Amino acid sequence: MIKVGIVGGTGYTGVELLRLLASHPHVEVEAITSRSEAGLAVSELYPNLRGHYDELRFSEPDPARLARCDAVFFATPHGVAHALAGELLERGTRVIDLSADFRIRDAGIWADWYGQPHGAPELLDEAIYGLPEVHREKIRQSRLIAVPGCYPTAVQLGFLPLLEAGLIDPDRLIADCKSGVTGAGRGAKVPSLLAEASESMKAYGASGHRHLPEIRQGLADAAGGEVGLTFVPHLTPMIRGIHATLYGQLKADAGDLQQLFEERYRDEPFVDVMPVGSHPETRSVKGANLCRIAVHRPANGDTVVVLAVIDNLVKGASGQAIHNLNLMFGFNETDGLAAPAIMP
Amino acid sequence: MIKVGIVGGTGYTGVELLRLLASHPHVEVEAITSRSEAGLAVSELYPNLRGHYDELRFSEPDPARLARCDAVFFATPHGVAHALAGELLERGTRVIDLSADFRIRDAGIWADWYGQPHGAPELLDEAIYGLPEVHREKIRQSRLIAVPGCYPTAVQLGFLPLLEAGLIDPDRLIADCKSGVTGAGRGAKVPSLLAEASESMKAYGASGHRHLPEIRQGLADAAGGEVGLTFVPHLTPMIRGIHATLYGQLKADAGDLQQLFEERYRDEPFVDVMPVGSHPETRSVKGANLCRIAVHRPANGDTVVVLAVIDNLVKGASGQAIHNLNLMFGFNETDGLAAPAIMP
Amino acid sequence: MIKVGIVGGTGYTGVELLRLLASHPHVEVEAITSRSEAGLAVSELYPNLRGHYDELRFSEPDPARLARCDAVFFATPHGVAHALAGELLERGTRVIDLSADFRIRDAGIWADWYGQPHGAPELLDEAIYGLPEVHREKIRQSRLIAVPGCYPTAVQLGFLPLLEAGLIDPDRLIADCKSGVTGAGRGAKVPSLLAEASESMKAYGASGHRHLPEIRQGLADAAGGEVGLTFVPHLTPMIRGIHATLYGQLKADAGDLQQLFEERYRDEPFVDVMPVGSHPETRSVKGANLCRIAVHRPANGDTVVVLAVIDNLVKGASGQAIHNLNLMFGFNETDGLAAPAIMP
Amino acid sequence: MIKVGIVGGTGYTGVELLRLLASHPHVEVEAITSRSEAGLAVSELYPNLRGHYDELRFSEPDPARLARCDAVFFATPHGVAHALAGELLERGTRVIDLSADFRIRDAGIWADWYGQPHGAPELLDEAIYGLPEVHREKIRQSRLIAVPGCYPTAVQLGFLPLLEAGLIDPDRLIADCKSGVTGAGRGAKVPSLLAEASESMKAYGASGHRHLPEIRQGLADAAGGEVGLTFVPHLTPMIRGIHATLYGQLKADAGDLQQLFEERYRDEPFVDVMPVGSHPETRSVKGANLCRIAVHRPANGDTVVVLAVIDNLVKGASGQAIHNLNLMFGFNETDGLAAPAIMP
Repeated sequence: MIKVGIVGGTGYTGVELLRLLASHPHVEVEAITSRSEAGLAVSELYPNLRGHYDELRFSEPDPARLARCDAVFFATPHGVAHALAGELLERGTRVIDLSADFRIRDAGIWADWYGQPHGAPELLDEAIYGLPEVHREKIRQSRLIAVPGCYPTAVQLGFLPLLEAGLIDPDRLIADCKSGVTGAGRGAKVPSLLAEASESMKAYGASGHRHLPEIRQGLADAAGGEVGLTFVPHLTPMIRGIHATLYGQLKADAGDLQQLFEERYRDEPFVDVMPVGSHPETRSVKGANLCRIAVHRPANGDTVVVLAVIDNLVKGASGQAIHNLNLMFGFNETDGLAAPAIMP
Repeated sequence: MIKVGIVGGTGYTGVELLRLLASHPHVEVEAITSRSEAGLAVSELYPNLRGHYDELRFSEPDPARLARCDAVFFATPHGVAHALAGELLERGTRVIDLSADFRIRDAGIWADWYGQPHGAPELLDEAIYGLPEVHREKIRQSRLIAVPGCYPTAVQLGFLPLLEAGLIDPDRLIADCKSGVTGAGRGAKVPSLLAEASESMKAYGASGHRHLPEIRQGLADAAGGEVGLTFVPHLTPMIRGIHATLYGQLKADAGDLQQLFEERYRDEPFVDVMPVGSHPETRSVKGANLCRIAVHRPANGDTVVVLAVIDNLVKGASGQAIHNLNLMFGFNETDGLAAPAIMP
Repeated sequence: MIKVGIVGGTGYTGVELLRLLASHPHVEVEAITSRSEAGLAVSELYPNLRGHYDELRFSEPDPARLARCDAVFFATPHGVAHALAGELLERGTRVIDLSADFRIRDAGIWADWYGQPHGAPELLDEAIYGLPEVHREKIRQSRLIAVPGCYPTAVQLGFLPLLEAGLIDPDRLIADCKSGVTGAGRGAKVPSLLAEASESMKAYGASGHRHLPEIRQGLADAAGGEVGLTFVPHLTPMIRGIHATLYGQLKADAGDLQQLFEERYRDEPFVDVMPVGSHPETRSVKGANLCRIAVHRPANGDTVVVLAVIDNLVKGASGQAIHNLNLMFGFNETDGLAAPAIMP
Repeated sequence: MIKVGIVGGTGYTGVELLRLLASHPHVEVEAITSRSEAGLAVSELYPNLRGHYDELRFSEPDPARLARCDAVFFATPHGVAHALAGELLERGTRVIDLSADFRIRDAGIWADWYGQPHGAPELLDEAIYGLPEVHREKIRQSRLIAVPGCYPTAVQLGFLPLLEAGLIDPDRLIADCKSGVTGAGRGAKVPSLLAEASESMKAYGASGHRHLPEIRQGLADAAGGEVGLTFVPHLTPMIRGIHATLYGQLKADAGDLQQLFEERYRDEPFVDVMPVGSHPETRSVKGANLCRIAVHRPANGDTVVVLAVIDNLVKGASGQAIHNLNLMFGFNETDGLAAPAIMP
């Protein structure tokens, strides 16, 4: 058993870490911190956890106590991991950051999008982008993981096979994404109220969203050069789930796209390439650490359409974080992540 | 007061016609037909109508009785209007068809997509496509209207200004559309159950959907030549609403897109071009005969993104049908269609 | 045309007043106030109103301007109407208060439940409880109306016929009520988030809710003496609607309950007694100023079950407020309130 | 490892058995039958199961093959278990029936409510009602289990401590229950469509529901004599979950109700008595085999209100069935049932 800590545990990715870790055979939660809820029992905030973690209470973030953990998850707003990660790493505790703090390799780009200077540029070199389908081996050796964002996970997994194979025009990528409302976090904001967000659909951030540079960076790696990406996220009236609908322009000789995807992900435990003609539903991954993908070529034309679905809180956040942990500590990749999705 | 009939009144577009016509100052509903529910009071099937139409019962479709109406709406599956429209027109009754029967000018294309021969090709010449923003004057003179489909309404209104002005590449149009479940009608099908369709998002018909030829025909008219369109509809967990997210590649000198849209729709009572930077929500048109549109140009690049929302049952069906009726009979265009959307 | 003002117009009852008044033939909205949004166009906050009220902006509450109105609606938290009503009445403006400020005749009981002294006890004598089905004639003569709460409207209309006729034991009344989330207002609170409140059901205030004394007061009037009431409200995952399920113990000779209800409400334009065996759905009144009621006597036993549904924002708030206005100014009772419910 | 079969596996309780059994350490699914879907891969119907049970296909119900299982679950409409259970028992296969076939001890009462003769009255004597909180020891010895219905589970667990202790009047029990739509099964029926059932609330079966005699039988056992129960179920716009709100009239000396409930369920792994003042939410048990209960006594009066929530597909069906299996085969009671609920 290893000991883990969770910093900023009151949000949705925090409770999801606890839910998943409750079934993990090798992990014990040592501490969970929250400035606002310090002292409160975890199960009081999240009654679904009653009967699990009954002794666990939110505590003030105390680096000394966190440093007694083998690994610490950051489920925090941006900036917090910047401030704490260095000290923990120095004390020998590995860091798995679910926030955006270490996702973008260029501190200047980060600063532009987040409106503040990067707080730990000295750590960027060793931070590994925790998309196991791309960086598995580096993750195994890493002390500091930047867990990908939810949209970036779905969009990258959908485009990667095409870009790596050089089959689509990298200048004309379109990602039309639909997310459930937990993507906006647990903050009390009027637009996230049931009375406002249910029975409605809307785009947001059509002129620019913070996940854009992260996605562009990953796609550029795959394409071997800059990409042109239009990314439009939409707020969908459901709790969980992301549906990414991706459009690319095929170059001359595309070949068998289904086979391409199946081969690319053949050995991946958490990517499911569905049969030809499928339309994956977000509910088919609810609660599970999976990305299901289908690839279409309407009317056999030169536009390829990729449909990729994930649970934004699992494969898009907490599940993927645990996958990284499993890789870092040499556990089975599926430990704690094997349960099927819940449906209906 | 004119008298109208409704053929096939048990579906959602039927009850929506009744809801809207209840506030129409010049229309009286003379007959509503349904083979399966003949004899049943309308308010028994639709308790929201109790207190309105209390004497109205579904009746067997009887051409003689229908011919006593000034106009007849068809809210039927495809094929029914083919069979009845000719006789009604001959007897002097105008026909407003909400089905797909007369939307496509080429009977062969229709037959390909609907898997059966066109049942009334001799009427195609005089059928007018009932998109008032394009064909207002012809509608005024017409006896036979093909009310546009829901997706086609949103997609055409969003692309029209750009195509008419020749500002985007007509070969590279993408329409990513999200629809509430009433778009699938009132049929008892497992995928439309709340337990299946709520808390989930999925694409469907990614390889080809029956609205595709209709949209292509309308866009080609606007572009003055064939267009290349990728159209991917999605099932969204809500009752009403369509959100069309449209992508086009701008040609060199695009100019002020906001101004273009505002001018194109300046005098249209049912198209609302929202301010720069807006993200229209489908709920902002719930129950109302409106299309709200916003136009974006992310990072000032060469991709234009148009966001267009309608209520699929109103501007996408029954409301637009009544708008056509108003034009045909010289009523005010907004008669019966003036109430604001209901929100929240 | 009369001029009306709305104080506190940013909440759900405020926008609902605007939506309904847009179709009212005799009312013009002169002013709508909000301290927090002063200066903002109404249609910017509520895009469903674009095209209506385009000149109307939220303004600071200014008694002088409000006093130029013939009537002022208060759609405010408790306490606000206490402070302003007196001055307006003195200047000849009638007041229709949608808050709880004047609903309870006993200032001491009010103070107990609201945790502060009553701010205008001198007005209590002339305040009329605006339930037209009980106080129609007094409302016509009144200057100051306390519009009933949403739960109280449904519970009273359901129990009244039985209590007035002395058919049930007044000491054993149970009201199990289910409300959509707009009942909690537009405040940004975590439990009202879509991610928290959808896909779930819970009771709240089982040990005591502020609507309890109001309901008890109304039922006691009907019963001619104190009543014993257990009232348990529940939060339901929907935007609008209240479903009240009411249980009473019948005394010996109950007679024909259906007939009793039908006679009690025969002339009421906004109460619909449904046929024997009905189960009213909240959606059958969505957006409409209606209470639909069904009465059951399971297994012909001595328990009577009354099912009553309203739209909490219409018959439970803004619609009923307009009904009161219509009575006070001698308009037709259904002016502005005639449109059918929207369904589906 | 034991081998189990599932008869009638295409419904929601069938897929839920598969989801839960995927995490069971001692169970292997040998066969799953469906006449209508014979030949289809399970994961084709339920894509959430892709990656689990990949070899498993629906098969025609074949008693010989089923008899090779150690136990067979019936997830069928009523009548099917009547026909097959006897043969399986004879061949040494234990039967766990999730349908209503063996829940009611009196074959005549069964016939009255189900409108057909009881098909296996000779088995009634040995059928054990599978509510472990009442019949744990008998279940351990049993070959034939009647798994309780969803409403009956919640209502009985809520009332039992009060009735067993003789604290409430058994003639005046009221159970106001709210269920998600999966309670109605996976049948394609118009009232279960998202477009019909969402954004609405309604009662049904107010004059009598098939779960009534089952509940009455269980409550009578606890009370030691006949009970008078009014039971009103409601359809709630959510997928899963039952919220039972129970009302009883306390006799003179009630004592500490919280303590009573805590003691009654102290050793129960799947009943959670929440702290004083709690309001359990159905989402707090989503996907988990739990009943959470809170007990209230409003204004310290003589009415007791019990709030009990379950997931209708888990503690109300498939989870409870597995709990029974665990007891019958001497496994740990929580095997396969230990994962926390999923929230949000």
